[in-house]
Amino acid sequence: MVKKKMLALVIESGTLDRLYCAFILSSTAVAMDMEVHLYFTFFGLNMLRKGALEKAGLPATYKHMEEDLKKKLAAMKYPTLLEMLKRLKDSGLMKLYACSPTMEMFGIKKEDLIPEVDKIIGAATFLEIASQAGITLFI
Amino acid sequence: MVKKKMLALVIESGTLDRLYCAFILSSTAVAMDMEVHLYFTFFGLNMLRKGALEKAGLPATYKHMEEDLKKKLAAMKYPTLLEMLKRLKDSGLMKLYACSPTMEMFGIKKEDLIPEVDKIIGAATFLEIASQAGITLFI
Amino acid sequence: MVKKKMLALVIESGTLDRLYCAFILSSTAVAMDMEVHLYFTFFGLNMLRKGALEKAGLPATYKHMEEDLKKKLAAMKYPTLLEMLKRLKDSGLMKLYACSPTMEMFGIKKEDLIPEVDKIIGAATFLEIASQAGITLFI
Repeated sequence: MVKKKMLALVIESGTLDRLYCAFILSSTAVAMDMEVHLYFTFFGLNMLRKGALEKAGLPATYKHMEEDLKKKLAAMKYPTLLEMLKRLKDSGLMKLYACSPTMEMFGIKKEDLIPEVDKIIGAATFLEIASQAGITLFI
Repeated sequence: MVKKKMLALVIESGTLDRLYCAFILSSTAVAMDMEVHLYFTFFGLNMLRKGALEKAGLPATYKHMEEDLKKKLAAMKYPTLLEMLKRLKDSGLMKLYACSPTMEMFGIKKEDLIPEVDKIIGAATFLEIASQAGITLFI
Repeated sequence: MVKKKMLALVIESGTLDRLYCAFILSSTAVAMDMEVHLYFTFFGLNMLRKGALEKAGLPATYKHMEEDLKKKLAAMKYPTLLEMLKRLKDSGLMKLYACSPTMEMFGIKKEDLIPEVDKIIGAATFLEIASQAGITLFI
């Protein structure tokens, strides 16, 4: 059996720009028939709370550009972050992990997270996955 | 024919600190006879608009350090970001890519970008390049 | 002799969240008997000045969450950043590098840095290390 190529991302950022980057790279990888492993940690993981992705904004440095960018994305009918995540999930090629130490630090419970999350794992499991991935990025 | 080693960077950040990091790593890689592939996206790509690199500053968190750092760099006669990019280009070993989805989101046109840009590409082309690179980083 | 697996991190960020990410990944890697190489640059390197790690805070975007997070970490008796770094050092598997161009830019001298730093190196040495690492991330 031929092993698929893999993309592994640590997603630490919780801002619109970086989440779009992560999801665009992931969607593209899935379209290229690669396996995608997303490990959400810190502010990234906070965005997997129910209702959070819909409110993603730009970081402080670029706050003044947020309204314009959101209008532009709406006018382009660009898929939202949540829509992109659901499509990734539907592909069957994406696995979504929540970082267990972050959950403790922020007092996040499993039931607070969107149902698309596959598993709560620690860094050891992620490093094992990443060591098999052709491309691993920290976003 | 022996294939050169490759460094591939996704440059999402548009701030002075991270652009210097990216360009210092790239210049060093070129000096080591590696091929360098730079994929500018989001705030990174916005800095490839004509006249933008010259105005790069620090992120909100470190804004108070910006003036001092710029004075220090000038006093050291440290090469500017634009000078570093031009030298990278002159080496013949660096390829500069603009991310096509970002161009649409921000309404950036080819003619808005500095002439050093080699090509406008999507994430698929970048992932193919990155899968051959020994080192791939998201900056 | 079998070569150990390696994790190589460029640590550009100087904020609590990202330093914890870097140190949690590193501690986990060490526990998995991997070699860990940490290259501190820019705001990351500034946090290796004596007394700096103790004052690490959140970035501007998340400043409002800083006090709560610090209280939570204290209540959990979570190891501090400095404690984690010392344990990494004690493992004998972690090497700590300070970026030489950053030292010049910020006027940082060797004696300003905590004694855990192993060596001051340039990007070339780091790229050579990274080219042997199974996982390289820019944090």
